Amino acid sequence: MKQSIGVSERLFPCPVMVVGTYDEHGEPNVATLSWGSTASSGPQSVSIAVRPSRYTFEALQRTKAFTVNLPSIEHAAAVDYFGIVSGRDEHKLEATQLTPVRGEFVDAPYIAEFPFCMECKVTHVIDLGVHSLFIGAVQDIKVDETFMNDQGIFMWKAAKILTFDSTLRAYRAPGELIGDAFSIGKKYIAT
Amino acid sequence: MKQSIGVSERLFPCPVMVVGTYDEHGEPNVATLSWGSTASSGPQSVSIAVRPSRYTFEALQRTKAFTVNLPSIEHAAAVDYFGIVSGRDEHKLEATQLTPVRGEFVDAPYIAEFPFCMECKVTHVIDLGVHSLFIGAVQDIKVDETFMNDQGIFMWKAAKILTFDSTLRAYRAPGELIGDAFSIGKKYIAT
Repeated sequence: MKQSIGVSERLFPCPVMVVGTYDEHGEPNVATLSWGSTASSGPQSVSIAVRPSRYTFEALQRTKAFTVNLPSIEHAAAVDYFGIVSGRDEHKLEATQLTPVRGEFVDAPYIAEFPFCMECKVTHVIDLGVHSLFIGAVQDIKVDETFMNDQGIFMWKAAKILTFDSTLRAYRAPGELIGDAFSIGKKYIAT
Repeated sequence: MKQSIGVSERLFPCPVMVVGTYDEHGEPNVATLSWGSTASSGPQSVSIAVRPSRYTFEALQRTKAFTVNLPSIEHAAAVDYFGIVSGRDEHKLEATQLTPVRGEFVDAPYIAEFPFCMECKVTHVIDLGVHSLFIGAVQDIKVDETFMNDQGIFMWKAAKILTFDSTLRAYRAPGELIGDAFSIGKKYIAT
């Protein structure tokens, strides 16, 4: 039986995206966001939703550049901290002893210790009300080669990439495999 | 050690979104998409990336309405089929014996058997190249009350909501809890 619950709930699952930017003083800053996704396959783009009150918002508007860094479970506490405090008030990377590295293709820092880092150039900004949606064209992706398999595939589960459950306000690990996409549904195709 | 892998990889995790629309004949159609997310908290909005070649694209432009239905593991094969074939060629809901229900707030059908359904009105369309990003303001959410806990919270893991691993092209179950958000990071806050 279906029950109407208004509009308070969010989609599941959510990524845990640590967005890296340079602030007005050229200092590296990071913020944790969960509203965002792949936005297009060509040019390869991602979306991130950012409130105008965020310190990161100013940086995005000025530099038109950001990184998306995906943390593993071992970085959960640091990542949580990145979402609680503002870069206006604290040096988040120093506090967590994580290492910013200048992007190779964009004017934004990525985090050396995180297993997956995307460098992005802002191509669109759409004001949606409480959040503005920044679209970034992906310029390069750097991954920890420890988690590449023999076919050059990045293994998300082996890297223990963190995910977000917005309802329980909690982090989750990647789950178990259920079945192959573009395959298990073929049985329904009309013959 | 970081290795550059170009721009072929996608963000993780991805939702498995079954998007419901009415086609030009008023017939319910569904398509499975994984590029999308929450886009703003107010008005509560979601984004879905759709290729212009998709049958759903035409419907979205005409009706300015869609639903986002999140399936459980038991629907994995049906959902996979929804992503393989086009509604131009097959009656997907008939083939899988799933039940379309006319939306209460928008001109789009939701799927009765799925545990989580959002009704959305299109507010923005942004052409990003290979995909266009449709922003939908959420009008209502309907959930299977079986998966609500005593506090009225929808339990994603209990509902076994499907997620997508784009690298392995495979479906995953929700993973284990790792820690509480807005909590485990407090230890880093300067005192």
